Amino acid sequence: MNATLTTPESRLAESRTPDLTVVMADIGRRARAAAQVIALASPIDKTEALVAMAEALRAAAPEILAANAEDVSEARSRSATAALIDRLKLDEKRVAAMAEGIEVVAALADPVGAVMDAWTRPNGMAIERVRVPLGVVGVIYESRPNVTADAGALCLKAGNAVILRGGSDSFRSSRAIHAALVEGLQAAEMPADAIQLVPTRDRAAVGLMLGGLDGNIDVIVPRGGKDLVARVQAEARVPVFSHLDGNCHVYVDAGADLAMAKTILMNAKLRRTGVCGAAETLLVDRAVAATHLAPLVTMLLDAGCEVRGDEATRAVDARVKAATEADWATEYLDAIIAAKVVDGVDDAIRHINRFGSHHTDAIVTADQAAAERFLAEVDSAIVVHNASTQFADGGEFGFGAEIGIATGRLHARGPVGVEQLTTFKYRIRGSGQTRP
Amino acid sequence: MNATLTTPESRLAESRTPDLTVVMADIGRRARAAAQVIALASPIDKTEALVAMAEALRAAAPEILAANAEDVSEARSRSATAALIDRLKLDEKRVAAMAEGIEVVAALADPVGAVMDAWTRPNGMAIERVRVPLGVVGVIYESRPNVTADAGALCLKAGNAVILRGGSDSFRSSRAIHAALVEGLQAAEMPADAIQLVPTRDRAAVGLMLGGLDGNIDVIVPRGGKDLVARVQAEARVPVFSHLDGNCHVYVDAGADLAMAKTILMNAKLRRTGVCGAAETLLVDRAVAATHLAPLVTMLLDAGCEVRGDEATRAVDARVKAATEADWATEYLDAIIAAKVVDGVDDAIRHINRFGSHHTDAIVTADQAAAERFLAEVDSAIVVHNASTQFADGGEFGFGAEIGIATGRLHARGPVGVEQLTTFKYRIRGSGQTRP
Repeated sequence: MNATLTTPESRLAESRTPDLTVVMADIGRRARAAAQVIALASPIDKTEALVAMAEALRAAAPEILAANAEDVSEARSRSATAALIDRLKLDEKRVAAMAEGIEVVAALADPVGAVMDAWTRPNGMAIERVRVPLGVVGVIYESRPNVTADAGALCLKAGNAVILRGGSDSFRSSRAIHAALVEGLQAAEMPADAIQLVPTRDRAAVGLMLGGLDGNIDVIVPRGGKDLVARVQAEARVPVFSHLDGNCHVYVDAGADLAMAKTILMNAKLRRTGVCGAAETLLVDRAVAATHLAPLVTMLLDAGCEVRGDEATRAVDARVKAATEADWATEYLDAIIAAKVVDGVDDAIRHINRFGSHHTDAIVTADQAAAERFLAEVDSAIVVHNASTQFADGGEFGFGAEIGIATGRLHARGPVGVEQLTTFKYRIRGSGQTRP
Repeated sequence: MNATLTTPESRLAESRTPDLTVVMADIGRRARAAAQVIALASPIDKTEALVAMAEALRAAAPEILAANAEDVSEARSRSATAALIDRLKLDEKRVAAMAEGIEVVAALADPVGAVMDAWTRPNGMAIERVRVPLGVVGVIYESRPNVTADAGALCLKAGNAVILRGGSDSFRSSRAIHAALVEGLQAAEMPADAIQLVPTRDRAAVGLMLGGLDGNIDVIVPRGGKDLVARVQAEARVPVFSHLDGNCHVYVDAGADLAMAKTILMNAKLRRTGVCGAAETLLVDRAVAATHLAPLVTMLLDAGCEVRGDEATRAVDARVKAATEADWATEYLDAIIAAKVVDGVDDAIRHINRFGSHHTDAIVTADQAAAERFLAEVDSAIVVHNASTQFADGGEFGFGAEIGIATGRLHARGPVGVEQLTTFKYRIRGSGQTRP
């Protein structure tokens, strides 16, 4: 840890908190108590709180930027990478974007109380399945301070309390953002404990959260790099919404229009290479390899993308490197793609189900039958026909915002928006019925 | 283990399997492969298989009853309790009921492929959320051999493969039932591996299943007593659908009609005392304690139910024993009830949310406002107004059948029927869209 921190407050935050278990258990208890209150808050009250949070965030921009400048300066003094500094650094525009993000969440339909299903039994009992909040969400993230605002807003909208554990790098920024969120909660007379930020950089806090804080965390959402997600998945004793890998595929079928395939592949691979929906493997149907493979591969190479191919792919351009078995299962998150010729849609489906990560996979084809096969048989959270894999995003789905993408099979799958942050219960209304 | 087993086959099943890890890993791999096939099976094919399974079960009744007789005789030689023998013992009627249960599942609507939601984005992309099977379900149960048929049928209907680990007591019965199910699968040309029974009594198999068999089990459902469920909840490295306690409440509000309160309480407590939906605590509103408490308590005492009460309850009848704090949190599963006077619906809600197990809780009242408060604020999987808590059952909900009741908050909550044994994925249909 860095020695430039000198205020008593930040020393507290730096040092190993001796009573961390006590502090965290108390955070858990307060979160549970707040959750019980905001689970019953009216849609209007929650919207008011969110609007007030956005206002408080804008008003606090100077304090947030000052805190962020300290975080950035500390990171620079530690020789942090340019990528980390970029994720960490805030400016007026980024603070404004955070406030706007909260307003987008404020404007979403309130999911709580929605009747998902309703029926009447032969004995006259009316049964309803209604959406209710999940409870307490734990969010563990790294250097992006905006997660503080995004996760806080989404959890509140869904009627949940949230315990935020931000990265050490962005500790002061997150604290300043969190103070603004609490101001918004208080302006709307909501419990401040509905959005808590772990007040220490002590990494042991993460371990305690993964243990569930005596049953006071219902689900953990990790937001960050693979090391973080892998640790959370391995150690959590509570359910986790997360994905470790986004090994996404673009399959160019015999029925593909070449121009559309080029446009989709270019976007899926190179629009942004560091996002989880970026394509990592190109599969081309052998039936059109003679006409489609070379133009697709040359396009990527010319755009500066490294291509690692099987024998057929290597034959089309000398710049193609040899792919190994490991490449089929690799998420590069970089300007690199694996490329392979397959024997039609069945072989493509087999390859994706074997090597993919059940995240997002696309087929390009004008052949409806092949497309339906692909959509039905590829076992991924998101399957796409004739569009880019980079649409794997809650905003692009129309969810308003997301707290992440899940590749687990239970409860949440794909973008995790406000609806996925709820659960349900059954309400039975009778007139004295007893069970025979 | 008992020495009366002499066939080589049963010796194999008895002895510690030396290569158990290998055997179980193979079961997991075969389940995953079968799951990929039956996930895509048509509704008609699955229905045919289920009908054939019911037929095969009826035809195999003599073999099943013979196997069961051996199980029962072994249990008796071990001086098993009468309750265990009752759970274990099959007769013609019970075998017929199993076959009928499978036919009920066959007749249910197929959940797979149902479009849960569909919308179009401003860029023209059509997004659908469709139900898909969960994958591989692991079911760990105890002495009731009928779980073999129930769980096998439900999982197949939902397009899942299932790995069944029956109790040691019912090993031969489950094996005979399983053989009939496999016959049904084969008659419909479905993969036999879609329903596998762990072929050994070695308890280490349970531990291996709880570890997830190399990612080849997606969810575990324990069916049995508290020891089993507690072990599964503590050790499982995969999600679990289960409940440990059914500490259900009946709250008799100031607005309750006494006659209705008596009928509902009698049914909720004493219809069957050993089921998870049985009431374990009676709460009576102080406003009507003078008129309602004595008749309710006397009714239960006269019916042979022990009552453990607070001071106010003890005052109404000398037979009432003193309740301790522990009684409020106890699931008796017996003819015993805790009883307490509370200060109106708010106090009842507080008591239930504090001491209950989030299973099933009921209010009796003619006061609609109090009822709505109770239904909204009691944080349980099932909340009931003016009906018995013993309706907590998939069949009673109209689900056709259930694999259990879940009190966890994620994915499945309440009765776990075929729908809860599915998940979903997103299908996107575009016309060349790329992300800006």
